[in-house]
Amino acid sequence: MKLLEPLDINGMTLVNRIVLPAMVTRLSGEDGLVNADIRDRYVRFARGEPGLIVVEAMSVHGGKSGPLLKISDDGFIAGQAEMVKAMHDEGPSKVAAQIIHFLKIARSGWRQKVGDLGLSEIRAIVRQYAEAAGRVRRAGYDGVELHMAHAYTLSSFLSLQNRRADEYGRSLENRMRMMTETIQAVRAEVGRDFAVGVRFDGEECIKDGYTLCDSREMALRMARLGVNWISISAGGKFEDALHKPGEPLYPYTGYSGDRCMPSTNYPDGANIYLAEGIKQHLNARGFATPVVATGKIRTPELAESILVSGRADLIGMARALLADPDWPLKVRLGQPDRIVRCVYGNVCKALDENFRKVRCVLWPKGALQAPRVEDDQPPVWTYDDAGLTAVETRGRVQLKWNHATDDHAVYGYEILRSADGGPFDHINSVKGVFYVDDDVVGGVSYRYLVRAYDLAGNRTPDSNIATVSLPDLAAAMVP
Amino acid sequence: MKLLEPLDINGMTLVNRIVLPAMVTRLSGEDGLVNADIRDRYVRFARGEPGLIVVEAMSVHGGKSGPLLKISDDGFIAGQAEMVKAMHDEGPSKVAAQIIHFLKIARSGWRQKVGDLGLSEIRAIVRQYAEAAGRVRRAGYDGVELHMAHAYTLSSFLSLQNRRADEYGRSLENRMRMMTETIQAVRAEVGRDFAVGVRFDGEECIKDGYTLCDSREMALRMARLGVNWISISAGGKFEDALHKPGEPLYPYTGYSGDRCMPSTNYPDGANIYLAEGIKQHLNARGFATPVVATGKIRTPELAESILVSGRADLIGMARALLADPDWPLKVRLGQPDRIVRCVYGNVCKALDENFRKVRCVLWPKGALQAPRVEDDQPPVWTYDDAGLTAVETRGRVQLKWNHATDDHAVYGYEILRSADGGPFDHINSVKGVFYVDDDVVGGVSYRYLVRAYDLAGNRTPDSNIATVSLPDLAAAMVP
Repeated sequence: MKLLEPLDINGMTLVNRIVLPAMVTRLSGEDGLVNADIRDRYVRFARGEPGLIVVEAMSVHGGKSGPLLKISDDGFIAGQAEMVKAMHDEGPSKVAAQIIHFLKIARSGWRQKVGDLGLSEIRAIVRQYAEAAGRVRRAGYDGVELHMAHAYTLSSFLSLQNRRADEYGRSLENRMRMMTETIQAVRAEVGRDFAVGVRFDGEECIKDGYTLCDSREMALRMARLGVNWISISAGGKFEDALHKPGEPLYPYTGYSGDRCMPSTNYPDGANIYLAEGIKQHLNARGFATPVVATGKIRTPELAESILVSGRADLIGMARALLADPDWPLKVRLGQPDRIVRCVYGNVCKALDENFRKVRCVLWPKGALQAPRVEDDQPPVWTYDDAGLTAVETRGRVQLKWNHATDDHAVYGYEILRSADGGPFDHINSVKGVFYVDDDVVGGVSYRYLVRAYDLAGNRTPDSNIATVSLPDLAAAMVP
Repeated sequence: MKLLEPLDINGMTLVNRIVLPAMVTRLSGEDGLVNADIRDRYVRFARGEPGLIVVEAMSVHGGKSGPLLKISDDGFIAGQAEMVKAMHDEGPSKVAAQIIHFLKIARSGWRQKVGDLGLSEIRAIVRQYAEAAGRVRRAGYDGVELHMAHAYTLSSFLSLQNRRADEYGRSLENRMRMMTETIQAVRAEVGRDFAVGVRFDGEECIKDGYTLCDSREMALRMARLGVNWISISAGGKFEDALHKPGEPLYPYTGYSGDRCMPSTNYPDGANIYLAEGIKQHLNARGFATPVVATGKIRTPELAESILVSGRADLIGMARALLADPDWPLKVRLGQPDRIVRCVYGNVCKALDENFRKVRCVLWPKGALQAPRVEDDQPPVWTYDDAGLTAVETRGRVQLKWNHATDDHAVYGYEILRSADGGPFDHINSVKGVFYVDDDVVGGVSYRYLVRAYDLAGNRTPDSNIATVSLPDLAAAMVP
């Protein structure tokens, strides 16, 4: 399986092709220091053995930012070093730190823009990136990832919305100037033998934003500058963010936020075309810089097919690994059926959006970390029978079933559906024993089954199959 | 060339695979009647010989809507019939009418929503569609296209934002109910032997909007209902429209408007994936209903490749045919070099957005129609020399050249560019003799040439080639 093949990234050897992209946790205090909760979160991720863990964005400048990590002076190194060591002790994952600069925002909705920065401020930010990268190396990280995606400073320079009239704006070359200087300064600081990556938007997904036409040129510049991996995101911009009165703007509340973390309404792998277009462009110009695809890649089958078809070199999964950090380990052990599957309902995103600690809705109530249970004992149906029923009511399908029980705890119920005799697909997971399926059409015969799973991902046997069809309004018209 | 092959659509035989999608002109009066300007516009289109011309949306209900056509009672038939006859007299194009229902909007920004409609209102709208379709047939049209795209009533029922709690909302089946009833009522009215098409969004391109996951099911329903062609658009929604104080909302001002009419920042054929995904789904289920792909398809080469690779059955081009209605004719005559090329600058869109008559910025100043000149005499460079120069200035490239002259009039200057020895691509057209190229990066050798063209598309010889490179900031870093 290509997904489980190692990959060397400038001396940093990943044991597999699975990447945990940086994902905000809001577990830090306002001091920006690593604390026990954050350490536990990342050690838990390390236990699952992804090839690369990118620790959440830490600020290079120490700006006021709520409970986000900082790496803005040497005082932050010790705590980071301790966490990295604990992660390395836990498993084979390589560990990179994502470093970020962001501009000021106010509760009034006002925000500082790239056009407001003077040349000395630009130079200072470039310097801060370089110094922060040096600290990352000294803290024992295996690599550093420069955050140039979403709503933050470097991304805003790359943006097609950057209309600065000087040599830092407007033309594509000028929009890439600060990115170029930052990568050069970071490389000069960390040396040639350290893995430096970039995460940036393959498409801005805003009105008058850039698309692949520009992002493939940006990626080529990064490759030519000797960047060691390029991780592709999308959207996540301030331009279309919704402003809640009294709250600072949160750049994932608009359409571009949807595109950054595609929810249930999107096809699997909705953003793969971006990694694919960028990788094609790099490869055609003789660069083999590894490209990370992200965005609702949930199954080992899809991940593998992306790699085998050459559309990307690495698979990034944030929400899927939040739901089950042991996803890579379970694939390696040949137990993909024990993966606790993300439902892409974006409760984690909503928590972040509301400035609350980020956790997964599938976790046990109140838990701050994914469960970690040694347990081979699957749950059982309480009445030896799932008793699943499916009933059509006014153009929707209502499902009900019986509870299951477990020696530890039932974690949830997976709902699977087959349409017109096709394969059973996982359509959702819930905590309760009731579900309404709105994603149904008349003229199709649906079969449903449910299964309960415990904290370790062990499952009950499949329930009985319940079958239902909606009235077919089109039937009379078929020739 | 597959693009020039005929296609039978339920007895309506198109001479080629080129479709002019419905495009607002704002040439009508408030009375909604066909007038001389509208008739001239569509007769001009007919002269260019696209396989199918879809005349701009006309309202089924006669609601107040500014200068848009109406077909809401029999009094509108005569004027329509006269226009259709004039179009048929002009060339071989088949002619369909797009019919539309829209809800009320106010200058305050308020708009009526699908949740506000009672069941009797829904039934009345279905009835209005059917009666309007009957009038379309009686006016001598070859087909009727039901507008179910963008911000209008039928589309708003299909939308994932339709949260009606009754059988007309929320679930996919319920969201499709009004579409289903409308198609059935229209078919019952016009009979089996009349071509009925639908235009709808393959993706809403708004926050929490539907995507291909839903639209392929909608298209399948349409096919099962016996719809004869399906034309795929994207976006164009009220949800992300910008509200200008004192003006009614215009649903193409947000990101979804960009996606509806992709501008210079988008790759060619940016929305082809939607037609492709829908066609695949239909074909896999045994339906051969022709699918129209649209969205910045500008060259005969791209159009042909879409057809040959089976991603769509028909090619829709609105802006390209506005710029040069003779596009199909010039391709048929083997004169693709005489096509006046759309620059996708969306001045036409901006005119519509500002409630002004829609014309093409490339047309002669003040013209209300595309030029129509019999002229084989190409323009010439005034000084026997184009004198093109290209200079880099602060990360941009400035081009200058000499004027050309023509026996009728110079229409504009095409600018072509080659990067690093690649082919010369058309990057823009302008009226003047000066251009700034912002889409440039360091480390690439650019070659430019310009050529003037006249009202018939005849061209001067290519100018001299001007070469320029920007400083390569990355050069020092390449290993």
